[in-house]
Amino acid sequence: MSVAERALTSRAALAETLDPTRRSWVASANTPGTDFPIQNLPFCVFRHGQHVPRIGVAIGGQILDLRAASARGLFSGEALPAAEACDAPSMNGLMALGRLPARALRVQLSELLREGGSGDSAREVLAPALLLPRDEVALLMPAVVGDYTDFYASVHHATNVGRMFRPDQPLLPNYKWVPIGYHGRASSIVVSETPVRRPIGQRKAPTEDTPTVGPSRSLDYELELAGWVGAGNTLGNTIAIDDAESHLFVLSLLNDWSARDLQAWEYQPLGPFLAKNFASSVSPFVVTLDALEPFRAPLAPRAEGDPEALAYLSSESDRERGGFGITLEVWLRTARMRHEALEPVRLSRSQSLDLYWTFAQMLTHHASNGCNMRSGDVLGSGTVSGAAPENRGCLLELTERAAQPIVLPSGESRGFLEDGDEVTLRGYAEREGAVRIGFGECVGVVIAARS
Amino acid sequence: MSVAERALTSRAALAETLDPTRRSWVASANTPGTDFPIQNLPFCVFRHGQHVPRIGVAIGGQILDLRAASARGLFSGEALPAAEACDAPSMNGLMALGRLPARALRVQLSELLREGGSGDSAREVLAPALLLPRDEVALLMPAVVGDYTDFYASVHHATNVGRMFRPDQPLLPNYKWVPIGYHGRASSIVVSETPVRRPIGQRKAPTEDTPTVGPSRSLDYELELAGWVGAGNTLGNTIAIDDAESHLFVLSLLNDWSARDLQAWEYQPLGPFLAKNFASSVSPFVVTLDALEPFRAPLAPRAEGDPEALAYLSSESDRERGGFGITLEVWLRTARMRHEALEPVRLSRSQSLDLYWTFAQMLTHHASNGCNMRSGDVLGSGTVSGAAPENRGCLLELTERAAQPIVLPSGESRGFLEDGDEVTLRGYAEREGAVRIGFGECVGVVIAARS
Repeated sequence: MSVAERALTSRAALAETLDPTRRSWVASANTPGTDFPIQNLPFCVFRHGQHVPRIGVAIGGQILDLRAASARGLFSGEALPAAEACDAPSMNGLMALGRLPARALRVQLSELLREGGSGDSAREVLAPALLLPRDEVALLMPAVVGDYTDFYASVHHATNVGRMFRPDQPLLPNYKWVPIGYHGRASSIVVSETPVRRPIGQRKAPTEDTPTVGPSRSLDYELELAGWVGAGNTLGNTIAIDDAESHLFVLSLLNDWSARDLQAWEYQPLGPFLAKNFASSVSPFVVTLDALEPFRAPLAPRAEGDPEALAYLSSESDRERGGFGITLEVWLRTARMRHEALEPVRLSRSQSLDLYWTFAQMLTHHASNGCNMRSGDVLGSGTVSGAAPENRGCLLELTERAAQPIVLPSGESRGFLEDGDEVTLRGYAEREGAVRIGFGECVGVVIAARS
Repeated sequence: MSVAERALTSRAALAETLDPTRRSWVASANTPGTDFPIQNLPFCVFRHGQHVPRIGVAIGGQILDLRAASARGLFSGEALPAAEACDAPSMNGLMALGRLPARALRVQLSELLREGGSGDSAREVLAPALLLPRDEVALLMPAVVGDYTDFYASVHHATNVGRMFRPDQPLLPNYKWVPIGYHGRASSIVVSETPVRRPIGQRKAPTEDTPTVGPSRSLDYELELAGWVGAGNTLGNTIAIDDAESHLFVLSLLNDWSARDLQAWEYQPLGPFLAKNFASSVSPFVVTLDALEPFRAPLAPRAEGDPEALAYLSSESDRERGGFGITLEVWLRTARMRHEALEPVRLSRSQSLDLYWTFAQMLTHHASNGCNMRSGDVLGSGTVSGAAPENRGCLLELTERAAQPIVLPSGESRGFLEDGDEVTLRGYAEREGAVRIGFGECVGVVIAARS
């Protein structure tokens, strides 16, 4: 079978995994509204008790242990390299294989888990051997992140924030030409549920003569999507726009916590530094582009007069591929709300199609100077905001720098985050005729600054 | 023996390794002006033929194979953990042990290599077993760099560059309070002698209406020192100014190649990105702070009216420790100069004591918000420039953005770098009464952009 034939077969098999009528013999995967139906199958890294960490896949409320499944010989042929790479404490090896081996694994996993599929008749044996309830495992970082880059791809966010920091020129002249991005800190990327300590740092209000040092008074979240690099490129080589998606492995949620007072004082001329690098949280379940295939859609149209993307960032087929339509939400629950058993409140909801650049464009731009991308590298979208006030993906925008605080059901109000606040990001893709796919949650509780 | 006693012993033993009268039975280490006398003993990672990479130490024109030395049982006691960590293809494990085990190893190495020391009588056996001529080995990256941060610690550089990008306000109000830094790209850090491909990217002159894409027309080097982190700190914890040096393992040379046209167009508002991340070169020999001990000196005095460093960046004993006096040079040889057998010319010479901040201050600032530093992380000083025109550590400053090109002995002139140009950084510390210590070289040849 030629490479081209294999690719076609593999696309046909992929389509079957996305069949909205497909159901799993894992009952919780068929619950309407679940994040993890059989059409999703996101990867995660987990530890169960004293066992060594390994890679799993979420199915309903369960985690399927891919190491155990692989050891039972449940995978074969083209899926074997990916299955073998799952016996590891991080996904870097799996990511390095690129997308096709993981797709082959997905096809066999879907067959194993579907009602009437290869695993159905053996479910009494397989379920206890392979499945673990999600709340019995510890979810770990999906991969070792070599480099973390954060983009600024929401024109709404860039405009809203720019207005505060540079009222005379909110959107700089390069914005609509260059997918603006900067390097973030890899060491302080943590997995969801890791507490986030309020940073201490220098801040100086315009009215003050000299800076003071103390806990940030303007701690914020940033609602982002993260793209994780699969196969990399070697230093000096580029990634053509039409190849970019083959180098992207998965998407996840990302909260790029930000201390706005530290940021305002330090960010010129070289960009944010200590305002950001104290913590960035990622969700533990990473969703493959294959699972998102049914949710492809064009980005929101560019405004009248906006330039065409330059040739290296643009192609007919890339425009046809478009982006992935993912709805993103931020939820807040304060310590008092938890104490009073009040439910979290949703602070915002936005849409990844409102981004100005696709992940393919961000990745192609990143490598356009020969910069080498490595498996496990993270590309953040930047805060995903939309045009309306309720689409604003951080408090800086939502509360207009605390000038318009949000009032909560507990009677409290928030301009920025207080200690004890729990921020939860959620994401999902849904449309008529497809099964809804979820990203799970990215959660962090703010803890008091070090005394 | 208590910890305090051990530390004292260890300092006394350290002083012996720095004794300027100490000579090595490795003759080339006694040549006046050598970078690698027995007082230096910088580490490197090397590969010899088909053998696995391992850690060595430079002595004169030779590399001592620490793996081989360790296997022969030449080290003992407190030096053992460091010696064992040298059987590795990178220094991360050695760095993670912190400075004291490496100091113990240094003490035993110095005893082994000194004239009249433990190895002298066995030199006929030891030399062939342990020493390799430097030009017979391939020198590799010293460590796996988790994160790379570049500071901006030269007030002269910041002022000179600021004047070009912001004539109205060269030095921003935060500069003398905040050790300004930003995150660089770890993946594209390469070891000396790796060719550097000219990057392609977007650039737009102020006179142009729209950006164009092509090879950078303003490729530059940046003369920097790099500090490499030894023992790290955990996320959420800080590093006190008086502890900072115990977390710094070694210094090396760093060339932070920069494409000035890409930089001018992309850098606002989030800082340099593709203008920098196509390559940064480091020297293969990393010099321990122990070897630099005789070259401690106070930083150049701050200007009249400059603020005192804030409390977290300052202590009586830190001021007493000061910085390390290292002279830094840039040498250029073009392809035509090589063809005509012309020697390289020195473009600049500057002094690390002209930096506004010490590495201890940079590290303490970096971790002041709880950011976790990991063994092998790199902190660049930023371009090291001084007050005089001949102290300017990059072409942007030296040629005033190509307005005053440098004329070379070959009759060529340079505003920025051309393809084929070979840039060599050198560094050394010297003073009356101490043996000169060198950093070796950090070399890179510019190759043509990808067509």
